[in-house]
Amino acid sequence: MTFPKTVLNKVNRIPDRGRYDKETIYPIIDEALICHVGFTENDQPFVIPTLHARDGDTLILHGAKASRMIKHVSDGNPVCIAITHVDGIVFARSVFHHSINYRSAVIFGHGKLIKKADEKMRALEVLTEHIAKGRWYDARLPNQKELAATSVARIEIESAAAKIRSGVPKDDKEDYDLPIWAGVLPIAPQYHSSLNDPVLAPNLMPPDYVVNYTRQKKTAT
Amino acid sequence: MTFPKTVLNKVNRIPDRGRYDKETIYPIIDEALICHVGFTENDQPFVIPTLHARDGDTLILHGAKASRMIKHVSDGNPVCIAITHVDGIVFARSVFHHSINYRSAVIFGHGKLIKKADEKMRALEVLTEHIAKGRWYDARLPNQKELAATSVARIEIESAAAKIRSGVPKDDKEDYDLPIWAGVLPIAPQYHSSLNDPVLAPNLMPPDYVVNYTRQKKTAT
Repeated sequence: MTFPKTVLNKVNRIPDRGRYDKETIYPIIDEALICHVGFTENDQPFVIPTLHARDGDTLILHGAKASRMIKHVSDGNPVCIAITHVDGIVFARSVFHHSINYRSAVIFGHGKLIKKADEKMRALEVLTEHIAKGRWYDARLPNQKELAATSVARIEIESAAAKIRSGVPKDDKEDYDLPIWAGVLPIAPQYHSSLNDPVLAPNLMPPDYVVNYTRQKKTAT
Repeated sequence: MTFPKTVLNKVNRIPDRGRYDKETIYPIIDEALICHVGFTENDQPFVIPTLHARDGDTLILHGAKASRMIKHVSDGNPVCIAITHVDGIVFARSVFHHSINYRSAVIFGHGKLIKKADEKMRALEVLTEHIAKGRWYDARLPNQKELAATSVARIEIESAAAKIRSGVPKDDKEDYDLPIWAGVLPIAPQYHSSLNDPVLAPNLMPPDYVVNYTRQKKTAT
């Protein structure tokens, strides 16, 4: 399925890099641990980093009940959510053609507060499983007090686009012979060895989803 | 120097994590390769990832002349710029206390198009040196045509805040004895070995700032 190109999501600059299909956009969303949420209050834009998770064609965000961001999202105002993976630095021969290899997704929609207790619990499960698949089933689940202190919102993905740059530098023809090094410096997140909580109860080992942590690409559903 | 707490930059949720001094905020800005720029057009928020660089108490952004983002920023509309480093995943015993270790900066200001040729050239130098210190002096510098095709904006950092979480999980007292592993999974960007442009001219080696790439922390100035 492909999102229609509109004034919202159309990639104007270097349109070749734009993609509008879920098969491209959703894995970019799923691989990222966090997103940047944009909203407007009295004509003032705000951008706030936060954890997200995709649930079908919706995004789940959560926050403390008093959080400005989650209140604003829950109230149904328009939001824009950006997710970016930096994959490398592109060193061209000319300053002008320097670039970054990246995969980004920009998502537009409106939020809704999740009120029903069972739906809220399921949304928190989706968020927790986004952090690490399996964690929901190991951790102590939220109690009534914790549920009451947390607001969870669901945002319909109404429009979205991905923008991707990959590969080698593109220089002007006449620059290729210049004695200037050109190439790509690949960048990727590295997951180091986990650190036990210093007051960990005895004989507890980090679970497999921590030891072999990966942000594996789910297929779009 | 410390930015006054206002309705814009005040960290409301977990105020202990909020910082308002340049000595904390500026290194967060400098270490990040890219930022997320938020702006509002006809009540619709947009968030766009882009390269940035700090120049004293200002941020430099650039883009193709026709870019919606750079046009909007250059026109002097209010912008919010967020920068986030994810340093780790915090696995608590309870779902509720799961968290992310992070350092984020949120910056508020208004942009201005840089029109003077020499100031524009200097801003592009700052941007290029932000990518890798020394690159400006190695690469082929922008020519008149390239300068004309690029818009560069300067944003006064009028207000800003950092928010930082670090360290171990914080669980409820009664949860510490549960047989659930808790700890931190540290995350950091990894710079892999550089890849030569496949059509690189002979006998060119990657420069030191590529081989030993690091996003070293500058001290605030």
